[in-house]
Amino acid sequence: MNCGIGQALEAFGDWWTLLIVRDAFFGARRFGDFERSLGIAKNVLSARLQHLTDHGIFERVDVGDAGEHYEYRLTEKGEALLPVLTAMREWSDEWVFGRGNEPVIVQDRRTGRRLPKLRVTAADGRALTRRELRTVPGPGASQETIRLLTPRPRAGR
Amino acid sequence: MNCGIGQALEAFGDWWTLLIVRDAFFGARRFGDFERSLGIAKNVLSARLQHLTDHGIFERVDVGDAGEHYEYRLTEKGEALLPVLTAMREWSDEWVFGRGNEPVIVQDRRTGRRLPKLRVTAADGRALTRRELRTVPGPGASQETIRLLTPRPRAGR
Repeated sequence: MNCGIGQALEAFGDWWTLLIVRDAFFGARRFGDFERSLGIAKNVLSARLQHLTDHGIFERVDVGDAGEHYEYRLTEKGEALLPVLTAMREWSDEWVFGRGNEPVIVQDRRTGRRLPKLRVTAADGRALTRRELRTVPGPGASQETIRLLTPRPRAGR
Repeated sequence: MNCGIGQALEAFGDWWTLLIVRDAFFGARRFGDFERSLGIAKNVLSARLQHLTDHGIFERVDVGDAGEHYEYRLTEKGEALLPVLTAMREWSDEWVFGRGNEPVIVQDRRTGRRLPKLRVTAADGRALTRRELRTVPGPGASQETIRLLTPRPRAGR
């Protein structure tokens, strides 16, 4: 089906790619910054940075100084991935590491306080679970999406 | 580095895996439900369902009726992926499809209203951008994480 989750996955390309974006959020800009953090082969890193630049998540900026000439900077589209990375980190903190074992803590720089967890809510702020949601075809739905989102009768339930 | 984003990626396994979770959120439970939606080979789907079950995202429930005997149901850990999937969908809706071209719309079942977008906020509800955040080593940080999150002086900037 045509779907935002599938499209996001296509833009990321593969897992390494999202880790590159994570490093950019932590401040990495140079090829060498990403290389040191990720420990991946230069040709692989180079292809991933190209993929992210092609998808408009990074822009490659010629900084013209000695050594490395380029920086990879998050575009507005790249910066907009903050909720995706935050949701992934919060899920792992709770369900993989567990409370009290978080490898990193993200704070509000101004107050030093931790951020409240992302929650899917109704317009009035009530937290919603999956069962309280309804997914319907949108204006850009394909025929396949419409078919998949139309409930089929199922025997016995 | 040890990091929640890397751990979330490890739990998902690969892109297909996250699309399987998406289908479960939309109501898929049977092997055949996932197969129809994703159009992938049975052996690949089978391995991915096993991976998700091993990671505690699905539980395999023997429903004991004719035909397919098992259902794959999201556990609490699986249901907790709602903000991850929502953040990915919202990013694509805005940056890939564009407003007015969303393939699916998610509504509050009770009111029929669309959900407000996920935002990373401070404790008082102010929206925060990446530059307003500070990432520091947490109680479970490895030596490598501590090293990476400690700013290194950089010539000329």
